[in-house]
Formats: sequence, C-alpha cells, structure tokens
Amino acid sequence: MSTFEQAVQADRAHVFHSWSAQDHVSPLPIAGGSGAHFWDPNGKKYLDFSSQLVNLNLGHQHPRLIESIKRQAETVATVAPAFANDTRSELARLICDAAPQGFEHVFFTNGGADANENAVRMARLHTGRRKVLSAYRSYHGATSTAISLTGDPRRWANEPSDSSVVHFIGPYPYRSAFYAESPEQETERALAHLRATIELEGPDTISAIILETIVGTNGILIPPPGFLPGVRKLCDEFGILYIADEVMAGFGRTGKMFAFEHFDVVPDLITFAKGVNSGYVPLGGVVISDPIYQTFTNRVFPGGLTYSGHPLACAPGVETFKIFEEERVLEHVNELADAVIRPRLEEFASRNPLVGEVRGLGFFWAIELVSSKETKDPLVPFNASGPAAKPMTDFTVACKEKGLWPFTHFNRVHITPPLVTTKEELERGLDITFEVLDDLASKLS
Amino acid sequence: MSTFEQAVQADRAHVFHSWSAQDHVSPLPIAGGSGAHFWDPNGKKYLDFSSQLVNLNLGHQHPRLIESIKRQAETVATVAPAFANDTRSELARLICDAAPQGFEHVFFTNGGADANENAVRMARLHTGRRKVLSAYRSYHGATSTAISLTGDPRRWANEPSDSSVVHFIGPYPYRSAFYAESPEQETERALAHLRATIELEGPDTISAIILETIVGTNGILIPPPGFLPGVRKLCDEFGILYIADEVMAGFGRTGKMFAFEHFDVVPDLITFAKGVNSGYVPLGGVVISDPIYQTFTNRVFPGGLTYSGHPLACAPGVETFKIFEEERVLEHVNELADAVIRPRLEEFASRNPLVGEVRGLGFFWAIELVSSKETKDPLVPFNASGPAAKPMTDFTVACKEKGLWPFTHFNRVHITPPLVTTKEELERGLDITFEVLDDLASKLS
Ligand SMILES: Cc1ncc(COP(=O)(O)O)c(C=O)c1O
Ligand SMILES: Cc1ncc(COP(=O)(O)O)c(C=O)c1O
Repeated sequence: MSTFEQAVQADRAHVFHSWSAQDHVSPLPIAGGSGAHFWDPNGKKYLDFSSQLVNLNLGHQHPRLIESIKRQAETVATVAPAFANDTRSELARLICDAAPQGFEHVFFTNGGADANENAVRMARLHTGRRKVLSAYRSYHGATSTAISLTGDPRRWANEPSDSSVVHFIGPYPYRSAFYAESPEQETERALAHLRATIELEGPDTISAIILETIVGTNGILIPPPGFLPGVRKLCDEFGILYIADEVMAGFGRTGKMFAFEHFDVVPDLITFAKGVNSGYVPLGGVVISDPIYQTFTNRVFPGGLTYSGHPLACAPGVETFKIFEEERVLEHVNELADAVIRPRLEEFASRNPLVGEVRGLGFFWAIELVSSKETKDPLVPFNASGPAAKPMTDFTVACKEKGLWPFTHFNRVHITPPLVTTKEELERGLDITFEVLDDLASKLS
Repeated sequence: MSTFEQAVQADRAHVFHSWSAQDHVSPLPIAGGSGAHFWDPNGKKYLDFSSQLVNLNLGHQHPRLIESIKRQAETVATVAPAFANDTRSELARLICDAAPQGFEHVFFTNGGADANENAVRMARLHTGRRKVLSAYRSYHGATSTAISLTGDPRRWANEPSDSSVVHFIGPYPYRSAFYAESPEQETERALAHLRATIELEGPDTISAIILETIVGTNGILIPPPGFLPGVRKLCDEFGILYIADEVMAGFGRTGKMFAFEHFDVVPDLITFAKGVNSGYVPLGGVVISDPIYQTFTNRVFPGGLTYSGHPLACAPGVETFKIFEEERVLEHVNELADAVIRPRLEEFASRNPLVGEVRGLGFFWAIELVSSKETKDPLVPFNASGPAAKPMTDFTVACKEKGLWPFTHFNRVHITPPLVTTKEELERGLDITFEVLDDLASKLS
C-alpha cells in the first residue's frame, strides 16, 4: 500500500470528520507545504486558493511562524489564564494598537465560535438585554450560541436555536431582497428593514447586532456604501451594541488589518481568530471597547476557557504583526488586488457567460455563477448537494487535476489565497480557474 | 521597574481575564517551569499542586512534549480538518485503543466545552430527543450548551440557560441529600432520585445523561459503589445515552487512562481535553461508540471547528501515550497514591479538627474543611467570596509564601499535582498543606 493510501486508511479508521457523512469522506493527505502550496505524499503539488479554511493568511509553513512556536515551546509552552505571560500581553497590546482608539483590552479564546459566544455574553451583561440580531447568509461558528447566530443551512440541523436570536436580511445588491436598483438604494432599504426589525422586536430587548463585516463563506458580500455606518447609527439610537465578526475578514484578508476600516465605522466589540496567527495554533478572541470593559472592572465576567490566552498560540500571533510590517503584507495584498485580481476577474466576468457577478476586496473575492446573466438564476440551487451540485463538483475536480485547490460554496467560487501568494502564483491560479470555468461554460451551453 | 512588575503591568494594560472582575486581578507572571515546579521572574519557585487548571498532567515543560511540538511544527503545523494528517490519525488510534471495545472514532475539538457541546449534539441527533440531564455540583465548560449543563454558580450569571437541560442531585455520601447512612444507601437513593427525575421529565424526551465520572472542581466526588453501573442500567432501560465527561478526570489523573475504568461501567460517549496533551496546545474531543458513529455514516454530522484535529495539538497527544508507557506514569501515580497521598491524608484527617473528609483516587484528592466535624458545617459558606471566604484566602496566601501553589474551591483544598511529581515533592507539598492547615486550625480555635 502506498503512503498515500496508508494515510487515507489511517484517517478513515479512527477520525470522525466535521460537517460530513462519514462514509462519504475521502480526505487528501497533506505531506507538506510552503507558502501558497501544499503537496500530498505522492508529491502532487496544489496551489492553495482556499488558504485551508481561509485561515492560513501567511501561508503554509512560514519559517518565522514556525520559529516563533519553537521558541515559545522552549520557554513556556503553556500557563493557566490567571497567570501573566509576556507573549500574551504583547499580542494583546499589538491587537489593541491595531484596533481603533478606545479598544484597550483583549479576551482570548480558542477559535472563532467561542470568540462570538463571549462577545454576546459581554453584550448581554453590559446592556442587561437578551436578544441578538444576526443576518441571514452568515456563519458565526458551531457552539450553541454561535450556531444560533449563524444564518445559513448549517444551523438547521441544530435547531431549535437559542430563542433570543433573531435573523434579518442583510444587503446583497446583486440579489436585492428589497427591489433596489442601486447600491445606494440597497443600503437605504436594508437599513429600513433593519430598523423595522428592531422596532418590531422591541429595541429595549436587543443587546447586540452581530455582523460579519464582509460576509465570508456565504458569499463575500461587501456592504454597500453607508450600510455599516447606518447600522452604527441605529445601534446608537437604540442603545444596542454592534459586534463585528472579523474572524474571516480580519488580519489582512481585505488589505487592511480589520475589514471595517474600509467602511468608516467603529464597532463596540470585535471578534477575531484565523488570520491572527494563521491558525498555526488554535486562537481567537474579542477586542473590547472601553465602556464594555468598564462593566467588568468591579463585576465578575462569568466566562472562561482552560486555554484562554495560550502562550504557544500567542507567539505566532506576535510574529504575525512583525511579518505584516517587515514583509509589507498589506501593501502586497493591495497591490496585487488592484493590479491582478480585480482587473482579471472583471475582464473574465465580462466574457464568460456563467459569471453573474464578481466582487471582493484584497485577497477576498467571489465569482458568482449563474445559468443566465439575465435571470441571474444560480448555477446550482441554494444548498444543493449530490447530483444537483454537479457543475460545482465538476469545477472542483477539474481544478484539483490541474493542481489548484479551490474554495467553492453553493454557486460560488471564492478566491481566497494566502496573503503571501506571489504575482506569478496568483496569475497561474486565476488562469486555471478561468480555463476550467470556460470549459464548464462550453459543456453547459 | 522590575521584570516582575513590568510583566504584571503589561498584563493589566491589555489582557482581559476570565471569571474575574478586572480591577481585582493581580496575576503572577510565570518565567519558566520544569516538572512539578514553575517560577516567577524573581526566581521564586512554586510547587504546582494545581497542575495549572488540572491540565498539566505531565508537568511543566516536559522535554519530550516540547520536542514533539517542535518536530510537528517543522513538518506540518496545521491542515484543515477535511484533509488527512498522520499525527491526527495516530492520536485517534491511540485514544480508541485506550478506550473500551466498541469505541473506534474520535471527533477532535479545541477544548473541553466544545467537546461536551459536540457530544450533546451527537446524542440529540442519534436519539431524536432533546433534553439532557446533568448533575448539580458539576462543571462542563462555558460555551452556551456547556454552561447550561454546568451545575455550579458559574451558570447563574449566564442564565436563562438552554431550557432542555435539567439538573438532578448526584450522590455525595459525606453530605447526603437523601439522608443515607452508608455509601450503598446513597447509591440506592441517588439512583431512585435519578429514576424519578427521568420519569417525571418523560423518558422519551431525554437524549442523554452527562456526568463527570469523578466530579472535579466541584469536590472530587467519587461515585459510591454501584452508582455509575446503576446510571448505565437506567440509560439502557429508557434508551438514553450516557456521556462521560473525562475532561479533568481522564488521562491518568485517577491512576487509570479513563476514570470510569474504576467503576465497571462503559459510557456511550466520552469527552476529553486537558490531560490528552497536558494542554501544551489546545485540544479536546469526543470518543464515539459504534452505534452513534453509525448514525453519521450516511447522514451529515452538523458540527465543526476550523481547528478540529489540529496536527500541532495532536503531536504532544501522541507523545503523551508514549511517555505514559515508557515512564510508567500510571504505575507511578498508583504507587504514590497508595504509599503517600492516601495514608498521609487519612492520618491528617484524623488529627486536624478542620478536616471533615478526605477523598480521592490517584493524584485527584479533596480535603473538605469544616468548622465542626460534628455538624459538618463548611468552613466557608457555599460560593463564598470576599471576607466570607477569609479562612480559605488565608490558606492560599500562606501556601504561596511557603512555595506551594494550591488549588482551592469553596471550602475545599484539592491535591492535584502533575502526575510526574516525585515522592519527595509530594511529601513536601503535603507537609506545607498540613502545616498551614494546622496553623489555621489553631488560629480559628
Ligand atoms: C465569520 C466567521 N465567524 C466565526 C467562525 C467560527 O470560527 P471557528 O471555526 O474557529 O469556531 C468562522 C469560521 O469559519 C467564520 O468564518
Ligand atoms: C469536567 C470538565 N469539563 C469541561 C471543562 C471545560 O473545558 P475547557 O475549559 O477546555 O472548555 C472543564 C474545565 O475545567 C472540566 O473540568
């Protein structure tokens, strides 16, 4: 048996996989990686346009991240949250420095779901209110409150949800639920809808509105001009807190440290994970604005985790900030987004009949596939699987054959490579993507 | 400013601490550790009788655990859960080998709370029922479902809880809620109470009963003879699943790999974290018995985490199994428990007026302090803090002065050192504990 087969067999013997029917899982073994690439035990190399789960912002096996982990492991691998640790304090400082003025404290968690759980806990205790508003077409994690917040089909099998979570419809100019004919109109009507929801639910019952700054897995939905400032204004009007979920969009993915910096808005709580240390060690957290911090100066915050502020996880977080600065990561992302991704995607959209819309920022883009540009009917139905999803499966299979590891979701292809992907790699990944989509278009026509 | 002061200041500037009012936190900086000891930047050394949060089973900076992390970091620091990874597969195999027959699959998480969340998710989907029974005097974590399961004051500030969680009173022979006069009677009556609860809640509405095999933080409560087998029988009678929370009691803490091995019982789902890799990298999980696994072979399991089965976390897990075998860790624990801990604690209990009861197994013991052996009144009230908790605070302060880092909870002192603690270290830690308790007794008399 080959190393490849052995690895698959070892996995199938004892590993239970998330979001899957276990008999339908056939995991690819990864033998190694470097930068934007990883390879299997047969030496087949893939260009990673998914950044694994859009967490590997600094790419595979970044030597400086590896080194920071080894160094921390040799010093103090772990201490309990109640002790002080320099590496943890330093990462908290760096995150607060990167955050807007008035954010001076960080509560660390193990990942994105527990970051959102704790942000909601803070919001409820700070406001004394219980309800949370959250958008359809969103993902916030899979622990109880986080999956209740989630506005996609992954919630369904976990219902009944926390009954104090209420979903509303967010802006989505390409498929406006509000019959809007411009992004500006979409903003205006989405805000009217949100205001109506607040009024109908009872403003005094609502602790927080949580929003992915740019909706990630559910479509790379860029908020239209003025939408987030409008949300901020509604929150201020009604004493509601605004939680920005930056788990996927944060830490350079959009070309800025935090995605909300694009939209002239400051939230009350910021949740993060993934890019903070590229997921080399599990880490997430909440950045806390001062008024909310004040609530817990003399009152016990009733939450915690054994591994909150884990030094080994914080070390590659600290190193991430250094790498961002010294390797000019944000500049790289913005340059290539402007010079390569945006123009090439827009040009492709204008000539491939399957592309309904392309949208994005930085290294965070979606190609939305349709069966007709006129009707905008999605290429595969919402939440399709099995035979109904065949065109998307065909796309994925063809990309992998050509050495590209794509990210797809429903009727969309996401372009989410590591932020360290070079111009040449980016061009090659886009070449393959376009080639496969052109093939698909001719097969389907 | 000294390094010590700088470290405290850096922490207080930006780190938000769990379970705390932030103005009342004064964290000790840890500069390094080795085995059963850690030290602060002034070089003051502490014998760690808390194993941090009872997670550091193999002690501070175990060279083989450190080495395994460095090796894994150099090979493949992380891959997404959907891929196969040898280290993850190997840890899953080792855990299944250690588990009873009929447990062949592991779902990995980041810690104990999300392990319990996912065990409950599996139980609900497998049975098609919603309710979960859980014991008062328990801790199961701080995400939404986990804190709802929790039967201690940490739940209160997070209520309203998941309304499908119901708490019942478990056995506690020293303070029997059932007027029992022997452990056997306690078992009989606790089981009658549990049966009544099941019948009154409706057996067909109950998916699972979750129990810490030995209640940890809430008192090192050893189930009296026959209790757990009785729970197993009730579960079988009513089609309810039995979830064993082994997050704190598992991985050698009691002298066996899993604590339930002491009690002639096999659960349906086993949750673990902490000792699996001593918390050097965040890791937890669920060991799944075959019938429950079968439920998800052709049906999607609707849960997941970005860092499920993280290779860097699994590496020290694999190494833990090797160390257990090669360094004869379980034998060491059982030898010292028999030769040192049990006899010395029992002898001390017989002569110190504050000790109501000592109880435990392996390196997992409680000294329950009372104001009177006759009335059994706790030395400090349930959930006391501030001045009401003074005798316990005095105990802690005095231990720390003498270089011992104790673990206390309510009116109890827990003896939970790393499993690698030597006979001499153990003797010294007990010497200090007894000395301070003798002082306390004379001050209070
Ligand atoms: C926007 C967003 N929030 C939260 C999460 C949950 O993070 P985790 O999987 O680390 O719990 C994710 C994960 O994909 C995410 O994309
Ligand atoms: C028995 C038990 N279950 C669950 C947990 C929660 O684990 P974590 O803090 O890793 O979420 C703990 C933590 O102390 C525990 O002792």
